Amino acid sequence: MTDDSRREESLDPQDWDELKALGHRMVEDMIDYLSSVRDRPTWQPVSDQARDALQQPVPREAQGAEGAYQDFLNHVLPFPMGNIHPRFWGWVIGTGTASGALAEMLAATLNPNVGGGDHVANHVEAQVIAWCADLMGFPSGASGLLASGGSMANLIGLTVARNARLEFDVREHGLQESSQRWTLYGSTQMHSSIQKAVELLGLGHASLREIPVNGEFQIDIERLERTIADDRAAGQRPFGLVGNAGTVNTGAFDDLDRLAEIAEREQLWFHVDGAFGAWATLSPQLQHLTRGMERADSLAFDLHKWMYVNYEAGCALVQNEEAHRRAFSLTPDYLEHAERGLAGGHIWFSDYGVQLSRGFRGLKIWMSFKEHGLDKYAQLIQQNADQARYLAELVRDTPSLELKAPVPLNVVCFRYATEGLDTDALNHLNREILMELHEQGIAVPSYTTLDGDYVLRVAITNHRSRQDDFDLLVREVIRIGDELRDA
Amino acid sequence: MTDDSRREESLDPQDWDELKALGHRMVEDMIDYLSSVRDRPTWQPVSDQARDALQQPVPREAQGAEGAYQDFLNHVLPFPMGNIHPRFWGWVIGTGTASGALAEMLAATLNPNVGGGDHVANHVEAQVIAWCADLMGFPSGASGLLASGGSMANLIGLTVARNARLEFDVREHGLQESSQRWTLYGSTQMHSSIQKAVELLGLGHASLREIPVNGEFQIDIERLERTIADDRAAGQRPFGLVGNAGTVNTGAFDDLDRLAEIAEREQLWFHVDGAFGAWATLSPQLQHLTRGMERADSLAFDLHKWMYVNYEAGCALVQNEEAHRRAFSLTPDYLEHAERGLAGGHIWFSDYGVQLSRGFRGLKIWMSFKEHGLDKYAQLIQQNADQARYLAELVRDTPSLELKAPVPLNVVCFRYATEGLDTDALNHLNREILMELHEQGIAVPSYTTLDGDYVLRVAITNHRSRQDDFDLLVREVIRIGDELRDA
Repeated sequence: MTDDSRREESLDPQDWDELKALGHRMVEDMIDYLSSVRDRPTWQPVSDQARDALQQPVPREAQGAEGAYQDFLNHVLPFPMGNIHPRFWGWVIGTGTASGALAEMLAATLNPNVGGGDHVANHVEAQVIAWCADLMGFPSGASGLLASGGSMANLIGLTVARNARLEFDVREHGLQESSQRWTLYGSTQMHSSIQKAVELLGLGHASLREIPVNGEFQIDIERLERTIADDRAAGQRPFGLVGNAGTVNTGAFDDLDRLAEIAEREQLWFHVDGAFGAWATLSPQLQHLTRGMERADSLAFDLHKWMYVNYEAGCALVQNEEAHRRAFSLTPDYLEHAERGLAGGHIWFSDYGVQLSRGFRGLKIWMSFKEHGLDKYAQLIQQNADQARYLAELVRDTPSLELKAPVPLNVVCFRYATEGLDTDALNHLNREILMELHEQGIAVPSYTTLDGDYVLRVAITNHRSRQDDFDLLVREVIRIGDELRDA
Repeated sequence: MTDDSRREESLDPQDWDELKALGHRMVEDMIDYLSSVRDRPTWQPVSDQARDALQQPVPREAQGAEGAYQDFLNHVLPFPMGNIHPRFWGWVIGTGTASGALAEMLAATLNPNVGGGDHVANHVEAQVIAWCADLMGFPSGASGLLASGGSMANLIGLTVARNARLEFDVREHGLQESSQRWTLYGSTQMHSSIQKAVELLGLGHASLREIPVNGEFQIDIERLERTIADDRAAGQRPFGLVGNAGTVNTGAFDDLDRLAEIAEREQLWFHVDGAFGAWATLSPQLQHLTRGMERADSLAFDLHKWMYVNYEAGCALVQNEEAHRRAFSLTPDYLEHAERGLAGGHIWFSDYGVQLSRGFRGLKIWMSFKEHGLDKYAQLIQQNADQARYLAELVRDTPSLELKAPVPLNVVCFRYATEGLDTDALNHLNREILMELHEQGIAVPSYTTLDGDYVLRVAITNHRSRQDDFDLLVREVIRIGDELRDA
């Protein structure tokens, strides 16, 4: 089998200089692509030709790095999601940066497994977590983990909550050990990833009490307290409370200080979902919204949304390092730590989450924070919030538009409205407006439903947006709305 | 608040050409770094200076892209994990490629959220999944998801298993609804991520029956059947069976065809963990090991291990698309799909796993498969297996070395042994040999414990390794072992 005369193969190039030349072409192309993004449509549909090119049989033979890149240029590059564009405000999706894309190349060159051990990537990640903990007002002893995003960070927080607060060994015995209903609480505006986590953890959706909100889309504190009391009276076992730092629908903040008090009094684990809103803490003008967030037992947030870091970059922080580790740590023989060598060191991130193999998410964050400095991020977050207020004013000043929710942060919900149309007709009209905005390549807002009304939803986590982009949006919504109304 | 005179800021560079120049420097540096990797030590400890540089306060002020890169060159680049090196064989960790690192830059330039909708990244990912399904012998109607790695892919498979096979609505009611013990089965050689998943899902470690193995480290079929029967007799509810396609300790394959039969007869969900071993299917000489894998209800494997793709790249396949979707799908108002525009299209990966925001993992896989062709991967996998056999022969032929397990695939477990030392002394000696191999920068095997014996463990998923790297390893183990013995 082992034939000395056979040349050993590898995936390294035959000619490193050729690959270098290709790399230089890519740098030229990618930076030109980003610097000219404003001149292209925000979005366009994937062409039939590209679809066909992406439904091919397994490639058995090599086509070379050049050939693969040519296919990328032909079939992939022209049809991006659009979130790199200055007029992309759909869902809550960050922009990324050009230098972040370069950092990804550096990270993938080193290509470490950031699961643990004594190598530098673990130190970079620990540094980034320490910075985040500091910025979020968490103590220096808090633990944390970079994760794929907010969904995973919420899952991590709620796993720790479940394993720390249920009064038996859940890891060993499982939930069928208990006939009691262990409940947790949050508002109707919670992100769907909370429900997903609760279902995954085997608690069941029935354990999640969704409390109504007030006119500001904040959790109704009185209803919350009453529900907890009723549940206790009915023999159920409240164990967790979820606060929102920036809801996905409208950017609302629950009164986190009040929630922290309630959690303390009721002995509930307090988890805060701050996917994008947590970063309001950087702005002196917005920071008051996040008050109480630093009292959370666990906090989930993203860096790939309002910190404009390239995908993927989420983070979970947990006040109690031991509770965090006990929820996940598991060390079989083949992962036993050593005194020295690569398997030494004290940083083992695989003990704090689901992943054992972990990519080097920390590098792009570390380099971006250094490149721009946190003062710049504070300024940009404030700028996006100012732009949201500006858009809200434009909407208020325009007779054919209706603002549909308060604008505490960076999310603006509005619709085109005209007399003589009922709810169904207005919903249909606004749905059509949205699809025309996309299809004409003008801008990408998304949409949601508030009290039965379909509304256009502009969530601004975009460092490329300028004030006149919002002027253009309003102008075009009116134009398309009028055209459709008169059609 | 909105002051027209204020210049709007962004994270784009003031001068795009300056960033281009930096990008070109990075390409030069990174490709030089990879082409010369063989000349450097496999591993060296992180310097005190680098540690200090990574324990700094939050950077408030900008130091610019150049400054951040300089810090990377000084403090990060010299201290990699080492898995890019030809003599890294620790745990099961892939090598990555230079063109894969470039592809990461392309993916991060487009920076899409691959959660769904009509944009090209979703089509690229669907293409990659279709290729994987085809290669693994799954039908074209199977569903799949790219995930962070094997741990997450195992979690996805077992989540579908739980939600599909337990006879009540687990998502709605949770496991406390049931007082029965729902059990699943696998060998003592299962990867720790299976236990982690079972605990996370609320089933409890007690639900996981760990069946002993035979001398080939394969699950003992008779013991398995007896345990299932005993559990049923005791009123428990068997629902799942886990097969190993390449165990982490020794690379053993369970008899997957027999397991598929048992699962069918006993109506158990059959999940196969093929983290690296699944790819043996590419080699005509190794393919027989994976027979029966294609009958799995769900299959988990990585591309960042034996397919040498840069981190992160794992994959879960599920035969029954509907069962997969029903385990995870959840569509709140703000994620409602549309008929047209960006929110149209039929591919919504967020319905098939934990993540809602998802990075563009598919691109590096798509480009690498096209660049090299699958025939080349088949050749490299066979090459690594041949190297493992070659190393095993060297060990067998060396009086002071002992082969400690069969070598069916790419994992070689052995130790230095000398007369007159008891188990404790030999364990201590081999532990010291391993740390010296690391600290002297010679090579990075890892270690495990087999029947109480500490053994050096060489797992070859490295496209840069050559036959003479294994000659060197054996020579150095003997040298260090002799020195320590005589010391």
